Amino acid sequence: MRLAIVGATGAVGHELLRVLEKSSLQFDHLALYASPRSAGSTLMFKGEPLTVQATPDGPIDADVILASAGGSVSKALAPVWVKGGALVIDNSSAFRYDDAVPLVIPEVNGQAALKHQGIIANPNCTTAIAAVAVWPLHQRYGVKRMIVSTYQATSGAGAKGMQELETQTHRLLHGQAAEAEVFAHPIPFNVIPHIDSFQDNGYTKEEMKVAWETQKIFGEPDLVVSCTAVRIPTMRTHSEAITLELHHPATPDEARELLRHAPGVEVRDDPAAQLYPMPLTASGKYDVEVGRIRASLAFEGGLELFVSGDQLLKGAALNAVQIAEYLQEQGALGQPTRATALS
Amino acid sequence: MRLAIVGATGAVGHELLRVLEKSSLQFDHLALYASPRSAGSTLMFKGEPLTVQATPDGPIDADVILASAGGSVSKALAPVWVKGGALVIDNSSAFRYDDAVPLVIPEVNGQAALKHQGIIANPNCTTAIAAVAVWPLHQRYGVKRMIVSTYQATSGAGAKGMQELETQTHRLLHGQAAEAEVFAHPIPFNVIPHIDSFQDNGYTKEEMKVAWETQKIFGEPDLVVSCTAVRIPTMRTHSEAITLELHHPATPDEARELLRHAPGVEVRDDPAAQLYPMPLTASGKYDVEVGRIRASLAFEGGLELFVSGDQLLKGAALNAVQIAEYLQEQGALGQPTRATALS
Repeated sequence: MRLAIVGATGAVGHELLRVLEKSSLQFDHLALYASPRSAGSTLMFKGEPLTVQATPDGPIDADVILASAGGSVSKALAPVWVKGGALVIDNSSAFRYDDAVPLVIPEVNGQAALKHQGIIANPNCTTAIAAVAVWPLHQRYGVKRMIVSTYQATSGAGAKGMQELETQTHRLLHGQAAEAEVFAHPIPFNVIPHIDSFQDNGYTKEEMKVAWETQKIFGEPDLVVSCTAVRIPTMRTHSEAITLELHHPATPDEARELLRHAPGVEVRDDPAAQLYPMPLTASGKYDVEVGRIRASLAFEGGLELFVSGDQLLKGAALNAVQIAEYLQEQGALGQPTRATALS
Repeated sequence: MRLAIVGATGAVGHELLRVLEKSSLQFDHLALYASPRSAGSTLMFKGEPLTVQATPDGPIDADVILASAGGSVSKALAPVWVKGGALVIDNSSAFRYDDAVPLVIPEVNGQAALKHQGIIANPNCTTAIAAVAVWPLHQRYGVKRMIVSTYQATSGAGAKGMQELETQTHRLLHGQAAEAEVFAHPIPFNVIPHIDSFQDNGYTKEEMKVAWETQKIFGEPDLVVSCTAVRIPTMRTHSEAITLELHHPATPDEARELLRHAPGVEVRDDPAAQLYPMPLTASGKYDVEVGRIRASLAFEGGLELFVSGDQLLKGAALNAVQIAEYLQEQGALGQPTRATALS
């Protein structure tokens, strides 16, 4: 099986290489692509330097392409790659709301991946992090209403987002004015309730992604989801405060026990020992930390929880690789219209 | 009228002096008190140095005492000060839940201040900031359910909280490990879902304060309020994402118009122009910024909003001074059991 990464030099690309080094995914060849200005640079993979190539306009000779070069690149080229015989696991939002494209979190709806037509969409990071924690609760209790407030890291805007936080914080601490290029406003020591573009309904696209994608991934088009998405001055790992109204009443103890056995989740919930989810502890971790599990004061029988998940991992690179692993385990890797791996 | 500040050298004390300089409150004498180790230091007031005295164990010779030296000082000494003839406007949580003590936000329930018995409590900062924005909506539409997620600045832990954020951020940017003294965990580039102590129900006291105090200030003991209180790496100004279920349906346009005429509120809500509440713009401002006003996706006819308010001002110093101003305007300043101002 020949694997390619498009967008290899970005923040998610970097994590894809690290995740693949530890992955059970079997492949014979790995090709790295990025924008022309990164062509010729090298990235390390299992101790070997791999040369980055400029992403071609045409097909890529690979069985599986992990695409993380942004929505416009995916929109333009993914259909070409599919035509050329590749399965595309796409990290952008370009195809997520296309009925013909499965939107997959392996812990939630892995089987949906089997029905792809050449493209599988990787969900929005904020959605993925909430979904692994909420899905087991939904299966047991039935989520009726889900209210989410996010605490999103600058890495959501890629490596340049983290860079801006670091350099501008440095400037501020040295008495210079902070300037914004990546974000709409200076981010050091600030809070920006604005991620992605505003929609006509007053919500941002990021907020609507959490609603639309949770509904699609859970297979519950009528699930009520409302989100406020907020950028804060952290480097990586998104946190989320989640309030759940449930069809069947839950107790925190029962929910905690349920989540302890849920895949992709680490219950970190011992307030007396000052243990709860935090970016400090969740960064670099595959599992999403879940804690502050308590009976909701807003909804009788409902729950409130707090999650922290590394959005470069479960929110992006890890989930993409897990989709490929899942398909390989199911013997279903490769494009359905094509003979199995060539290499 | 003779005024005293207890806790003058703290973060709130500093703001009290600045607010008093611009206040319409009329007083003849201002005395400053703090812990013994600050005694002898001077603080500027209207260009004049005032010497800080050690807070005595007994009565203070003042008509009005603005107390901001923490719960244990207030608990021990406020009754003594009242016995000595002073009216105490207390910024701690020591008396907030005492039925005999009014808990006052002048824009909401100023009249309650008139019924004091020597102590008036200043609300929790997070509560005060939410309440000025939600009260006008409650009056018009009737709030049924209120779900709050907070983004709280380090100044909530006083000057030492801000200092810790600054010095530890500096350490981190220079490759040294960040250490926590004021907060339970390192705060730079981190998120800590833990403010004040944990209660048996899994909520922190900070979270319960938002529920209890909103109910008391609004005079609605059955109002459903649920809060997640989170410390983030900002210097000052708390932000809050607020979801409201309403008894009578609201539209965002109508709510925006209503809030434009509400006291203590600045509507900052033009997403197309990237205008919404932020610590960057709300810090140092008397009014609470309110924006991101939109029809709730969680509750039909409900609203979602985002607020940013300087918690050292509206959340503390400003509100305390406004209580004194209100009483003076009503000709009710001073303790009811005592003759009017001596000086």
